[in-house]
Amino acid sequence: MPTDHPLDTALALQRDPTTPGRWQGAPQPAWANMVGPYGGITAAQLLQAVMLDERRLGEPLALTVNFAGPVADRPFTIDAVPVRTNRSTQHWTMQLSQGGEVCTTATAVCAARRPTWSAAEAVMPVVPAADAVPMETRKPPIAWVQRYDLHFVEGGWPDFSRPQELADSRTVLWLRDHPARVLDAAALAALADVFYPRVFRRRQRAVPAGTVSLTTYFHADAAELAAVGAQPVLGVAQGRRFVNGFFDQSAEIWSPDGRLLASSHQVVYFKE
Amino acid sequence: MPTDHPLDTALALQRDPTTPGRWQGAPQPAWANMVGPYGGITAAQLLQAVMLDERRLGEPLALTVNFAGPVADRPFTIDAVPVRTNRSTQHWTMQLSQGGEVCTTATAVCAARRPTWSAAEAVMPVVPAADAVPMETRKPPIAWVQRYDLHFVEGGWPDFSRPQELADSRTVLWLRDHPARVLDAAALAALADVFYPRVFRRRQRAVPAGTVSLTTYFHADAAELAAVGAQPVLGVAQGRRFVNGFFDQSAEIWSPDGRLLASSHQVVYFKE
Repeated sequence: MPTDHPLDTALALQRDPTTPGRWQGAPQPAWANMVGPYGGITAAQLLQAVMLDERRLGEPLALTVNFAGPVADRPFTIDAVPVRTNRSTQHWTMQLSQGGEVCTTATAVCAARRPTWSAAEAVMPVVPAADAVPMETRKPPIAWVQRYDLHFVEGGWPDFSRPQELADSRTVLWLRDHPARVLDAAALAALADVFYPRVFRRRQRAVPAGTVSLTTYFHADAAELAAVGAQPVLGVAQGRRFVNGFFDQSAEIWSPDGRLLASSHQVVYFKE
Repeated sequence: MPTDHPLDTALALQRDPTTPGRWQGAPQPAWANMVGPYGGITAAQLLQAVMLDERRLGEPLALTVNFAGPVADRPFTIDAVPVRTNRSTQHWTMQLSQGGEVCTTATAVCAARRPTWSAAEAVMPVVPAADAVPMETRKPPIAWVQRYDLHFVEGGWPDFSRPQELADSRTVLWLRDHPARVLDAAALAALADVFYPRVFRRRQRAVPAGTVSLTTYFHADAAELAAVGAQPVLGVAQGRRFVNGFFDQSAEIWSPDGRLLASSHQVVYFKE
């Protein structure tokens, strides 16, 4: 694994030898959002505390991250506790704190998978292959956006110079870490937050907005993710209801050959 | 509020005067599942610990419940901690334990909503009104199922006597507490788990299965829920991918006049 990749730099948490499950990390300039770090990188760092722990059973199945308060531009502590370990599942609670104040809470479930009857039900949208879709060259001057190659198939950047209410908030795009990097659970956790707040798209307007709670379900194990390698994956995202300051949006992340790698849901705050 | 309603009986947690945010409760025979309590009632009880707390700010926005281990048929303790309170949101962590062992972990976000631009995006399926759909009279001999009036529009009970793989796992139904009860956030939290494991429907086969993690987003505030009153609500549920022992399913819960009251997502364990 390339250790100088911006994602791997962010995931290089330092073990606190005094307390099992305690790690030190820091926001990375390369992953900055308009204010504080990109939510996806915080999600990936919280998951990484589980991935690095020798007590971990199996692989990530579910991750919920609650963005309780801002993460300041200084080192943070992550505490990860394996609350309960069963034969095939393990339940974790995590917190990211700065100066004793909790910035982010999270829970994760890991699972030891075994072969069973399997079937797809959701279907990948029919879209041109990634290399047939132009790579987006216009990017807002926000650091984390530069961490991804984006090929919008439908629903690209909002045009804030022409506010208008669109009929829907859907986005379909091919995306990949930039520089390219082999996919794993932490990378997928970060990717799952790439779909900017749907209120921007629906209204084509910049309003204050931020993720409050993010849940990602992992369908692919490490082998299936490794098989995707550094190919682009297809993301599909859409909102459901916008009401009195909050809305929810759901996303699916697909391998190029049509396997659902993850589904992800979030509730988002907005103003005005 | 009717205090002898089975839901209200389950929600009548007893305050532990020694510890702020600590409550005592017990599984209710009226809400029993095949093994242990119905997951929806456990979710509602965990949310209730927040609803009852004087420190609560605003109303439920998001609830994640992780079913870490079985809840035995004896009293339990719920600990609810308001980890961080902001101007318009409040983040909680909760645990349900028995004899010092954690059975369930949870997080909740409450929010003080303010009027903003609002819009629907997801659309309620076009279905006959609840009173035009026969009430389901066949019910499995499981206690919690008797707590709901069910009118299946599409995708009723699986027929385990004729195992066959169906093309999809979708269910659409009108449902209401039985006896009828005015809707509130706790009732909605319970309702959100009413959609039996989608693997039963897809395969028309009884296999061991159980919810691992459940996340519900609340779009309706107390006034909007009160306006629904004791009318039936429409539930729509479907799975996405079944693979090596786990699958996810999403559900939407609609008011009769087409407002999305809640969206809910879960990842479910299954065997074989």
